[in-house]
Amino acid sequence: MLRGILRPVSLALLALSATAARYPSFGTLQTSNTSGVMNVVINNTYSSINLFDFHVQSDLANLIETLQANDTDIRVVVFSSANKDFFLGHIDINFFLPGYESPLPQFDPFIPNMTFPVALLWNITQLPQATIAVIEGRARGIGNEFLMSCDMRFASASPSVLLAQLETSFGLNPGAGGAMYLAHEIGRGRAFEYVLASQDIDARTAAQIGWINRVFDTSQELHAHVQTLAARIALFPPAGIAGTKAGINAVSRPPMDVLIEKAQNIIGVLAQTPETQAFSVKFIAATHNQSIGPLELNYGEKLIELFK
Amino acid sequence: MLRGILRPVSLALLALSATAARYPSFGTLQTSNTSGVMNVVINNTYSSINLFDFHVQSDLANLIETLQANDTDIRVVVFSSANKDFFLGHIDINFFLPGYESPLPQFDPFIPNMTFPVALLWNITQLPQATIAVIEGRARGIGNEFLMSCDMRFASASPSVLLAQLETSFGLNPGAGGAMYLAHEIGRGRAFEYVLASQDIDARTAAQIGWINRVFDTSQELHAHVQTLAARIALFPPAGIAGTKAGINAVSRPPMDVLIEKAQNIIGVLAQTPETQAFSVKFIAATHNQSIGPLELNYGEKLIELFK
Amino acid sequence: MLRGILRPVSLALLALSATAARYPSFGTLQTSNTSGVMNVVINNTYSSINLFDFHVQSDLANLIETLQANDTDIRVVVFSSANKDFFLGHIDINFFLPGYESPLPQFDPFIPNMTFPVALLWNITQLPQATIAVIEGRARGIGNEFLMSCDMRFASASPSVLLAQLETSFGLNPGAGGAMYLAHEIGRGRAFEYVLASQDIDARTAAQIGWINRVFDTSQELHAHVQTLAARIALFPPAGIAGTKAGINAVSRPPMDVLIEKAQNIIGVLAQTPETQAFSVKFIAATHNQSIGPLELNYGEKLIELFK
Repeated sequence: MLRGILRPVSLALLALSATAARYPSFGTLQTSNTSGVMNVVINNTYSSINLFDFHVQSDLANLIETLQANDTDIRVVVFSSANKDFFLGHIDINFFLPGYESPLPQFDPFIPNMTFPVALLWNITQLPQATIAVIEGRARGIGNEFLMSCDMRFASASPSVLLAQLETSFGLNPGAGGAMYLAHEIGRGRAFEYVLASQDIDARTAAQIGWINRVFDTSQELHAHVQTLAARIALFPPAGIAGTKAGINAVSRPPMDVLIEKAQNIIGVLAQTPETQAFSVKFIAATHNQSIGPLELNYGEKLIELFK
Repeated sequence: MLRGILRPVSLALLALSATAARYPSFGTLQTSNTSGVMNVVINNTYSSINLFDFHVQSDLANLIETLQANDTDIRVVVFSSANKDFFLGHIDINFFLPGYESPLPQFDPFIPNMTFPVALLWNITQLPQATIAVIEGRARGIGNEFLMSCDMRFASASPSVLLAQLETSFGLNPGAGGAMYLAHEIGRGRAFEYVLASQDIDARTAAQIGWINRVFDTSQELHAHVQTLAARIALFPPAGIAGTKAGINAVSRPPMDVLIEKAQNIIGVLAQTPETQAFSVKFIAATHNQSIGPLELNYGEKLIELFK
Repeated sequence: MLRGILRPVSLALLALSATAARYPSFGTLQTSNTSGVMNVVINNTYSSINLFDFHVQSDLANLIETLQANDTDIRVVVFSSANKDFFLGHIDINFFLPGYESPLPQFDPFIPNMTFPVALLWNITQLPQATIAVIEGRARGIGNEFLMSCDMRFASASPSVLLAQLETSFGLNPGAGGAMYLAHEIGRGRAFEYVLASQDIDARTAAQIGWINRVFDTSQELHAHVQTLAARIALFPPAGIAGTKAGINAVSRPPMDVLIEKAQNIIGVLAQTPETQAFSVKFIAATHNQSIGPLELNYGEKLIELFK
């Protein structure tokens, strides 16, 4: 009964067999559980930049269903990455171009007016577990929107940590609400500054303005801090975690209808403009279909070359 | 007429005799007025930790009625504490246990769907006066929610200043909206970090991330700054103070219905769970019914012992 | 069609001839365009403090119509000031007094329940272009509200930069929503602190707490940074700029009805109180009708003299 009070649970979800995954599995998420903490390592072996493509999306969707169904044993989820250069990549830009094919539905089956990737991130904010991102490497576009959808964000001071909403440079907007979450964390003026300019931010500056919670000098300190924090929260009754999350979310998340209307639906229109279509084709060519290289590594600095 | 425009005034309140206190008086609040500034010293002589028990609640309720009725002579209210270790304690945990008795009603008489302690803090945010907290000593749980309900918060850098929302460790949530106010002040990510972990924060870190306005090296500097600030604001026409407060509150407070549904009502359910009941009994035993000692002094550090 | 999706455009506006200015022109805004960036220099030659009087308001209204109608060539607007002591002054206080005359209507013709100056600032937030303020000199009252209505704010560390909402000292509230924008940028507690006290803030402190985006040691660095930033954003497709702005505004601006009810309408009532009328007359006399001098230069420090 508490469950029904504290978070919406789809009846369809409850009917799902615990063992059957709803979507195809691609093995891009490695999970391990210890004393109430699930560690999830993101490792998209189909991409050199940990692209947020349908492989990752499909595995994330299955993971979310597992977590929704288990709100007692697992109390904290920690996301880290096996790719030291890319915590998580941007969306597969082919998604916006003609001829794109994916095994995933266009819309979430339980939130019919939310597209599949947008609903993924929304569902992460809704999890009864506390969620923590351990950031080493880049996260731009929906990669950063994924970070903003977690409850907490900690990073190492490594120069490989570069965060950005890069959509405006494509003629797009952050369609899963990343700019809205950022406006809450860093203020309206700084959200405009970084998002309109599609500018990269490093870990120290990000911690200073509130984009992430804290920065640590070394990878060791980062992981040690997060594991201690996760173990502490995992001591507490899960209903208290879910109840506290519900309160904070109620005032700090973009309301669902605003997210749909002023982020998701706008990107749907913008993606079809000739400017965005042309830029996407140019970007895919220049990055050798989103492979690791100068442009993916230093997009914030090098994007200007694409406008010459 | 201005009064009616700027803030809601209960007709019942207006009918109240100015001299009769509505609730029992216990002398836990010492007040003195100077040139438009009321100084209120919190001193719960029934508790070594300045517990937010029915004595303090009853006196606060009477004080609030006095302030609501006097929106011209008194323009600024400054709260400080006579207990150098505890600015204000958490709620009396017996409140959640069977057999608890209090002379106070369960709900506020003028806001029928708000419980008495939640309405107390809400009413503080509604006062026509500017409210300032001078923090020396700890404030956890509803003690910190009281701070968040004041307009401004200044602290000394004394190690005795430790602030926290400790509810999650009890299997509860901050039921009077403390986590919601915090999410506005320190951002969503940091609110999750401190509140989900029931972690203490010291005064310097609190000032750095915006939990409090400023920190001062010494108690003398703290009090001098606040008295100067209070005297300055008290020069200004009271209608300007009330009008400015109405605007800031309209965008920065949790909306009343959200506060009730996503904070107050959730704690009402969570308090009855077996986990929270058992932990409360354990806590009361370990603290010798909430008396000063290692656990009350350093709850953030020592709470882990309660889970062994 | 995109235009209709991304921002409201008045049909009446579309019918306006591109060459005819709707309001009288006074030459207080000097504009120049380069590669998608319009630089606007505020220079109210009718006032030694760059007063936000009807001259500036009339020219701003015409500028806004030009920008609304041109959402492709001009992608970024940079506001700076020709008056090194005053980026932009407060409102002409005569506006609140009997006998005031102006060529401008009381309400905006397209937003009938918004007064003319409030609608001016609202319309700036609605522009399809990115807007950046380059702050050298003071901006108090509606001058600071103008800053808050821009997307971004950068300042030099010059001691001539002093920002404030000074309305409470007049018995007023920030009627165009300045305190509401500030509460989002600097938090609830600090918004109360600065606005209730009508306190000046310097550029370095303002950058530290998020009132402005950044501060630069010299005027040269300030201008160089902003021109580089503006040129970068101006590379991007205008629909992406407008779409991103729509998302951030949807969660970080005061909602229009709240702005009208809890800022604009309250100041309308407060301005008519005897206290505010008397203080306004006193202020106009003490400043020689708002001329440059000790009181206008250092209002935050010297306002106390007006209460002796």
